[in-house]
Amino acid sequence: MTASKTRFLEIATREDPFVLHNGERIGPVTIAYETWGELNEKRDNAVLLFHALTGSHHAAGYDEVGPGGDLWEKSQHLGWWDEFIGPGKALDTDRFFVVCCNYLGACYGSTGPASTNPETGKPYGRSFPYPTVSDIVDTQIRVLDHLGIDRLLATTGGSVGGLCVMDLAVRYPDRVRTVIPIASGLRATVLAKALNFEQIFAIAEDASFRGGDYYGTGEEPWRGLALARMISHKTFISLDVLERRARDVIIQPTDVLSGYLLEHTVESYLLHQGKKFTRRFDANAYLRIINAWQAFDLPRDLAGGDAVAALSPCKDQEWIVFSISTDGCFFTREQEEIVEALKANDVACQYVTMHSDKGHDAFLLEPALFTPHIYFALRKAAGAI
Amino acid sequence: MTASKTRFLEIATREDPFVLHNGERIGPVTIAYETWGELNEKRDNAVLLFHALTGSHHAAGYDEVGPGGDLWEKSQHLGWWDEFIGPGKALDTDRFFVVCCNYLGACYGSTGPASTNPETGKPYGRSFPYPTVSDIVDTQIRVLDHLGIDRLLATTGGSVGGLCVMDLAVRYPDRVRTVIPIASGLRATVLAKALNFEQIFAIAEDASFRGGDYYGTGEEPWRGLALARMISHKTFISLDVLERRARDVIIQPTDVLSGYLLEHTVESYLLHQGKKFTRRFDANAYLRIINAWQAFDLPRDLAGGDAVAALSPCKDQEWIVFSISTDGCFFTREQEEIVEALKANDVACQYVTMHSDKGHDAFLLEPALFTPHIYFALRKAAGAI
Repeated sequence: MTASKTRFLEIATREDPFVLHNGERIGPVTIAYETWGELNEKRDNAVLLFHALTGSHHAAGYDEVGPGGDLWEKSQHLGWWDEFIGPGKALDTDRFFVVCCNYLGACYGSTGPASTNPETGKPYGRSFPYPTVSDIVDTQIRVLDHLGIDRLLATTGGSVGGLCVMDLAVRYPDRVRTVIPIASGLRATVLAKALNFEQIFAIAEDASFRGGDYYGTGEEPWRGLALARMISHKTFISLDVLERRARDVIIQPTDVLSGYLLEHTVESYLLHQGKKFTRRFDANAYLRIINAWQAFDLPRDLAGGDAVAALSPCKDQEWIVFSISTDGCFFTREQEEIVEALKANDVACQYVTMHSDKGHDAFLLEPALFTPHIYFALRKAAGAI
Repeated sequence: MTASKTRFLEIATREDPFVLHNGERIGPVTIAYETWGELNEKRDNAVLLFHALTGSHHAAGYDEVGPGGDLWEKSQHLGWWDEFIGPGKALDTDRFFVVCCNYLGACYGSTGPASTNPETGKPYGRSFPYPTVSDIVDTQIRVLDHLGIDRLLATTGGSVGGLCVMDLAVRYPDRVRTVIPIASGLRATVLAKALNFEQIFAIAEDASFRGGDYYGTGEEPWRGLALARMISHKTFISLDVLERRARDVIIQPTDVLSGYLLEHTVESYLLHQGKKFTRRFDANAYLRIINAWQAFDLPRDLAGGDAVAALSPCKDQEWIVFSISTDGCFFTREQEEIVEALKANDVACQYVTMHSDKGHDAFLLEPALFTPHIYFALRKAAGAI
């Protein structure tokens, strides 16, 4: 366990705003981040970690202060990758300097839809832009600039975090040496697009959503947000896990679902997951981040749909691509596509499938699976092996 | 194409109500049905066809009169299995008498949540019972009694219709000779339970649903119903089909989704499917039928979870079990389970997998695949081969 502390960096001001890839401008922009370990004198031992869809910059340790705000207070205080970050762990803080930033548009301290719009003095709500994965990565490049890190030893992250990993690797090829996407893919597949759209619709059509301008109304679109979480949750865990967990659930009377009687433990388990999530996440922020995923398509955006050409800037990097055998969110054939495109470019690449019965979430739940490869790769990259 | 005409049978009255398996009583109960072909003198050439989740009794021909009501008027008038029913077709009306009934609780003419509750003089709405698959089957047994059909030559149906087929075969083993479930399963799997619950939640938590008492309010929970359709639709067609269809879609400006800009053809395609569905179906009826599926578990209800014991009454029947290779709704391992339980009971059984790129809906879209087996099996059962 490592002590940690959230830091805030203003990467853009109202006068000198951040320009998104679609031309929209926003300022001021603050990015919340945390670091673990020490940056060495050469500034060449840094690892940038990207969080997943609903994660935060608080990846390890118990947060002692927190960035403030209700959502943060109600969320778990132990970092989401605590078992991966620390002395002797996958990201060994005795040797490496680990950085993790909260996404632009999120709700854990970085500027997002609940932040004050300087034009109105009120929360942005509906008027907050929809950042792309590239916009999110660009805000974090500003943090690296501030920290004086020209070239990362490595970047890693799972799921939506892996999208950021690959976007950075392709658009800033000279700024990273080792690239480690975990359980991710080059684009939102048709199934992901369908599932994401169901979630977007659930939130946007909740009567309390009011187009995103629900702050201060006393109501929140929690029904839509809970449903979105239920829709996504089943893709994060294996169905065997869902069935096992549901078996231990006692069906609780519920304050929702008037006119429908909850009769199945699977229903009660999912409803519990959905409602629990709404206590720690904001609907507008969720829409922003899921939209970044929805719009993500590296081959389309960078090379007219050609995956090999899209990854051609990566020739001097080393990649480790991780699959999870039971992944129902980013399927193994998606990682195979990454590896094929890397090989066609002669990029140094290892492809590793972790066999787990835990589904997509294995990248959060099973540090023992991933630690050896990451630990070894980082030491080798640093010249220590 | 066969001309057809909806008939109505009152199977229970207010004074002598229909008793559901949970003890609830409802009366009067009317069942809407259609028939094709002629019942022979021995009354042994009848085939009972069960419709799927959102189907109707109007399985073939153009309906000339219709049962009345807005939903029916707006729905397609050509029967959903028209290419399967008629002279020389799978269900050959030159030789067989085909019957199809609308489910209890549905919205195409049988008594359902929009029917008048005689206690109040108003539509049932919230107070309409939740029938099980067995309740639905029992209402149709009353129709067979009325028609003087003691023993069916065969019963068939796809998807949720297949659940009814198997429930009838197991609980009324002497009333059917040939049993043909298509793309179905012995129970709602954990994935089906999750997907069904998402849909139930979407409807029940729509602000316009009002616990089911939305008739006469001028509002309908169409947002929830459209979302439910989107969630289920992706399981009915293969993802390749979804991707191909979406490619031909032009993104339309939309009157919904304030605060979110539709940017992807997959989104536009799904939204179109969802909205189109709300013009032909009632939310309360949808909840009733999806709940029957959600609660369906033949091995649990009849034999403490033992699939072999559950199918033991079927020894004198002949079964044909159909799988669809790309089915993403009822998976082939579910049909394998049926077949294994039949074989353990020495039930005469053929197991046939149809290779299709169309997914679950192949049982509606590809008559050429299913016709030879069904055509041959019925003639053989009738002693004509």
